[in-house]
Amino acid sequence: MVAKLSDVAELAGVSVTTVSRVINSYGSLSQKTIDKVHAAMRELRYQPNAMARSLQGKSSQFIGLIFPNIENPFFTALVAEIEELLFAKGYKVIIATSSNDIEKEQQYLQMLAANQVEGIITSSHNPNIDSYKDSFLPIVSYDRYLSDTIPIVSEDNYRGGHLLGEYLVSTGAKNILMLRDDDNSNSPTAKRYQGFTEATSNKSHLTTFDFDSNLVSNGGDMQAIVDIVVDNKIDGIFAFNDMMAIQLQNALRKANLRVPEDVNVVGYDGSPIVQLLHPDLPTIIQPIHEAAQRLIDTLFNEINNEPALSNNVLPVKLHIPE
Amino acid sequence: MVAKLSDVAELAGVSVTTVSRVINSYGSLSQKTIDKVHAAMRELRYQPNAMARSLQGKSSQFIGLIFPNIENPFFTALVAEIEELLFAKGYKVIIATSSNDIEKEQQYLQMLAANQVEGIITSSHNPNIDSYKDSFLPIVSYDRYLSDTIPIVSEDNYRGGHLLGEYLVSTGAKNILMLRDDDNSNSPTAKRYQGFTEATSNKSHLTTFDFDSNLVSNGGDMQAIVDIVVDNKIDGIFAFNDMMAIQLQNALRKANLRVPEDVNVVGYDGSPIVQLLHPDLPTIIQPIHEAAQRLIDTLFNEINNEPALSNNVLPVKLHIPE
Repeated sequence: MVAKLSDVAELAGVSVTTVSRVINSYGSLSQKTIDKVHAAMRELRYQPNAMARSLQGKSSQFIGLIFPNIENPFFTALVAEIEELLFAKGYKVIIATSSNDIEKEQQYLQMLAANQVEGIITSSHNPNIDSYKDSFLPIVSYDRYLSDTIPIVSEDNYRGGHLLGEYLVSTGAKNILMLRDDDNSNSPTAKRYQGFTEATSNKSHLTTFDFDSNLVSNGGDMQAIVDIVVDNKIDGIFAFNDMMAIQLQNALRKANLRVPEDVNVVGYDGSPIVQLLHPDLPTIIQPIHEAAQRLIDTLFNEINNEPALSNNVLPVKLHIPE
Repeated sequence: MVAKLSDVAELAGVSVTTVSRVINSYGSLSQKTIDKVHAAMRELRYQPNAMARSLQGKSSQFIGLIFPNIENPFFTALVAEIEELLFAKGYKVIIATSSNDIEKEQQYLQMLAANQVEGIITSSHNPNIDSYKDSFLPIVSYDRYLSDTIPIVSEDNYRGGHLLGEYLVSTGAKNILMLRDDDNSNSPTAKRYQGFTEATSNKSHLTTFDFDSNLVSNGGDMQAIVDIVVDNKIDGIFAFNDMMAIQLQNALRKANLRVPEDVNVVGYDGSPIVQLLHPDLPTIIQPIHEAAQRLIDTLFNEINNEPALSNNVLPVKLHIPE
């Protein structure tokens, strides 16, 4: 039970107006009255309530973030960067992880709306959530299609895939395996596979394998892929993200294949933690700071009814180990 | 500008009472009136306001989390677990990263209090923040001493350090290096070093090196440690966390030392991501789910004025690679 202004007044034996004057430091008040009110506030754990501002039509200063998880280091870094930039604007972040759970995501959207966040930044991986279309709130999406009216900020997925394909071909790979996660095909991420395919298909033999990404994040059964690599003499692999790439490198080395000499593995994402711990992994670095900034700028343009930004596709960079 | 009930009423051309009836679905209302009010709500992006409940003395359903960062995989996993468990209780999480920035942490505490979170779970690494002592809010701390009245949930740091020391001695290490981060010495984490020292000091030569953890999280200069290892013929190292241990393994291998044959490196934390990507790292696994649950139970005991839990030191586990 949160204490009300009237509870403080009752306990202090003064009027509600007097409590309000103490809180807002105006009017003529004796030190004795001030002390009594402070003591009552302390006892009742009463805090002057910023939520009241929202009822008066003032800003709540909350932004809601919906991400599938925060444990993938790329999401971790993006969430951390968004939080940092929003704090500098005086905003607080309510974090909601949807874990590919549609019902949880619907509930979060309703809770966030009811608490009057000023807007939502989402990287939902759940397709067909009607609440996004019906929402009154300003929403911006990271790298995922949600509805025709919700703006998307993404990185240049086509170019990222293309750069990795060119790189593997340049190392002499002839039998390439492309691992695809089971993502919503309406989303910009699908262009990674398109770019990679176009860069490799005339220059090497390309095998595609669709992977259940939930399996991977739980440790996955890598043996299936190792078998494909051995059976098809695969010498280059495009893993759909860095986490998958590193797990696959471990599994290949355990099967006595040399990485990168026998089979080269490339990832995708380039989060700071993976760059720190695995600088030898060839990958695409997505600009996290720029993405966070663009998501925030796009959201606040919506909030303030300003025109949308014209180009929300950010450039990526190929990282090759020294 | 957030729309008010009266704005909706004005736009719909009805009374505030009518809007309230539409929102709460009571009284006799024509479909035409309902449609007009809904259209006005949509146009003004008006949402029935859960914050109003707080003014009426009802629960805000918010819990604030203050962590130094969410990018260390151990913190990431703990925050994710806390969020998951609180969601199941109908609570939302406001995340605040203090980045070892005392001023930012003070500001966050004030913002969280003003928005009437029901309580705070903190793993602040900033010593001497008076706002913690002065706060009216229920607070629980993870593994850090903040004040005599704020309960601490921690893992068995002494035992963790002791297990790692015993393990390194059992592998035959004679010249051991212990890397200590520059942490607040009042905190339970200091017991790791005590346990490690007691397990090793009579059985091997122990060198201690105090490291600037900010340096490490930014990539750090590992060369200084590699030099110590070579100069002192170090054959066993206790790195203060897994992130540090993996970076150090990379640096040692680059200097043509074999890990673990020439020098064994052990970490601390055992986050799921490091376990997934580096199952070969000997480390202490801290039980994340149990810690999250105990933090929440302890906080809600405070919120509900129930007696404190008696034992808030959770058991840890030694992980040795197969």
